[in-house]
Amino acid sequence: PCTDFDKAYFQSYSHVGIHEEMIKDRVRTETYKTAILQHQSYIQGKVVVDVGCGTGILSIFCAQAGAKRVYAVDASEIALQANEVVKANNLSDTVIVLHGRVEDVQIDEEVDVIVSEWMGYMLLYESMLGSVIVARDRWLRPGGLILPSNAVLYMAPVTHPDRYAESIDFWRNVYGIDMSPIMPLAKQCAFEEPSVETISGENVLTWPHVVKHVDCYTITLQELESVTTNFKFQSMMRAPFHGFAFWFDVEFCGPAAENDAPSSESTKSNPRRKRANPSEALVLSTAPEDPPTHWQQTMIYFYDPIEVEQDQVIDGKVTLTQSKENARFMNIHLEYASGGRSFVKECVLR
Amino acid sequence: PCTDFDKAYFQSYSHVGIHEEMIKDRVRTETYKTAILQHQSYIQGKVVVDVGCGTGILSIFCAQAGAKRVYAVDASEIALQANEVVKANNLSDTVIVLHGRVEDVQIDEEVDVIVSEWMGYMLLYESMLGSVIVARDRWLRPGGLILPSNAVLYMAPVTHPDRYAESIDFWRNVYGIDMSPIMPLAKQCAFEEPSVETISGENVLTWPHVVKHVDCYTITLQELESVTTNFKFQSMMRAPFHGFAFWFDVEFCGPAAENDAPSSESTKSNPRRKRANPSEALVLSTAPEDPPTHWQQTMIYFYDPIEVEQDQVIDGKVTLTQSKENARFMNIHLEYASGGRSFVKECVLR
Repeated sequence: PCTDFDKAYFQSYSHVGIHEEMIKDRVRTETYKTAILQHQSYIQGKVVVDVGCGTGILSIFCAQAGAKRVYAVDASEIALQANEVVKANNLSDTVIVLHGRVEDVQIDEEVDVIVSEWMGYMLLYESMLGSVIVARDRWLRPGGLILPSNAVLYMAPVTHPDRYAESIDFWRNVYGIDMSPIMPLAKQCAFEEPSVETISGENVLTWPHVVKHVDCYTITLQELESVTTNFKFQSMMRAPFHGFAFWFDVEFCGPAAENDAPSSESTKSNPRRKRANPSEALVLSTAPEDPPTHWQQTMIYFYDPIEVEQDQVIDGKVTLTQSKENARFMNIHLEYASGGRSFVKECVLR
Repeated sequence: PCTDFDKAYFQSYSHVGIHEEMIKDRVRTETYKTAILQHQSYIQGKVVVDVGCGTGILSIFCAQAGAKRVYAVDASEIALQANEVVKANNLSDTVIVLHGRVEDVQIDEEVDVIVSEWMGYMLLYESMLGSVIVARDRWLRPGGLILPSNAVLYMAPVTHPDRYAESIDFWRNVYGIDMSPIMPLAKQCAFEEPSVETISGENVLTWPHVVKHVDCYTITLQELESVTTNFKFQSMMRAPFHGFAFWFDVEFCGPAAENDAPSSESTKSNPRRKRANPSEALVLSTAPEDPPTHWQQTMIYFYDPIEVEQDQVIDGKVTLTQSKENARFMNIHLEYASGGRSFVKECVLR
């Protein structure tokens, strides 16, 4: 069912500014463009669905790559704009814009390729991957291609003394006045909920932990309802530990199960081998050490830092659950322990 | 009556971040601090009301300047924090925090000084000046001091080709795709409503027009319900004219009507003379040519620029009205004409 929350969600994508921001994210858009060109042999003469097409840019890239037909699906009003863009580019014969949810629209043929930019903050926020799964299960032929093919959500402990100083320690001395009584409320206001911001590789205390590996070919809606993982980090330095950062990357590989696409110059190696060796695959990364994207990183800060020594262990468990209240929100339950103390933090990404 | 909109408004000030932003605006906070010290002779041993005290910083500046008693009034929950700050600074005997609206709280003595940082975007947005008027009429003794003493709202025609290019012309060529059909919606999304942003003095086409002069000693609630002015500009250059910028400054002068404050080193001249000669008065300016503040400037853009020649006349009329729907909002009705064409623009600052 299309809930009021879904409607509000689709509405939020009717504003042009959000598309401008996404398109201007060159890391995102150019990686998709490259991925589509790299998989031209899978797309040429084939039928494509673009799930959540927005302004239609990925659909047009696919048309330019030689697709026979592209179904550009979006439930937001922006689909009307996509349709005008398609017409202006004389692509109406190739790109068919469908204004509706993938659950509701009709496509009367089998589809060879699904392309979608479905990733939200912390990868799973917005739950748009669910629509890709629905599209896959409704229309994708066996052995068809999904771009991106897989995704990984990471987490790592972070130190960020500047951020803490700026929002919390600030109140210790305000134009000579001791305003430290405001600090508890300042901690709550700044750190109660997750915060989307850009950190740098230098903030990260040690190697990241994989929270979830998503294979777009096999993942189920049920698997996405709740994701749990146990983590164990060992800090590579002595530092105040301020919270956890989450980020993701997605890979663009050929289909794993079969190798029925013609080989071409742009896809020299066997796709099966490609997936087995991710270092060859095209990756869109939102890691702190990589160039910034509009996704930035998602930070979950503690109210008070934990002083950790070099090699000190930080372990615990994190559970990400679709909110029952609004399936577009994400509940985060975090348990963590270090130096003999343990903590629990609950928050919601809205 | 305290409407639901008022409650939402007070609620918005319970978040620490907004106070952090205001306090970190050094132009704002240091000008207030200087103004309070400059008027120390009016404050020493006197009774002060701080209207909308927030974290209590201005109240504490007044206490430091020797006030006998400071009533720090705020309807937002932040008043509870102000009270803790007052206690931590051992000022409970001097600063009395009153958590409520100026319309509702009780002060059982006459007041010598009102200090308030009431200015919103475009000066009048938020309608907080109304609370200063209520406080003045309820408590200020004849000849008492109001800081700031007066304010001026300005407007001027602006050229801003970069802004236009970035949000509108951008769609002409998006990674080689003609997305110009999106331009009408892009104009609506970017320019339908006023936008708070920082422009530079170089964007301004000519000298500003005074939309409204506010004398805090004499202004009435009725006067604020609707402000209208006719303007006539003459562009100093040939340029695409993209919209109007609004900004304000406030002045900190002694009381005009009487001169019953003791003279001191910090207020050498007669306050009556000071008000007559504003160049001597301390000014907090939010003009594009002055250092930026958190108020920035408020821009009202047109959907399409008007090409103006040097010396071309731009005339018209602007009316600012408190929204009937939500008194904290401001309706803007703008009529303007240039080069033989005339236009009307209506928008709301929410």
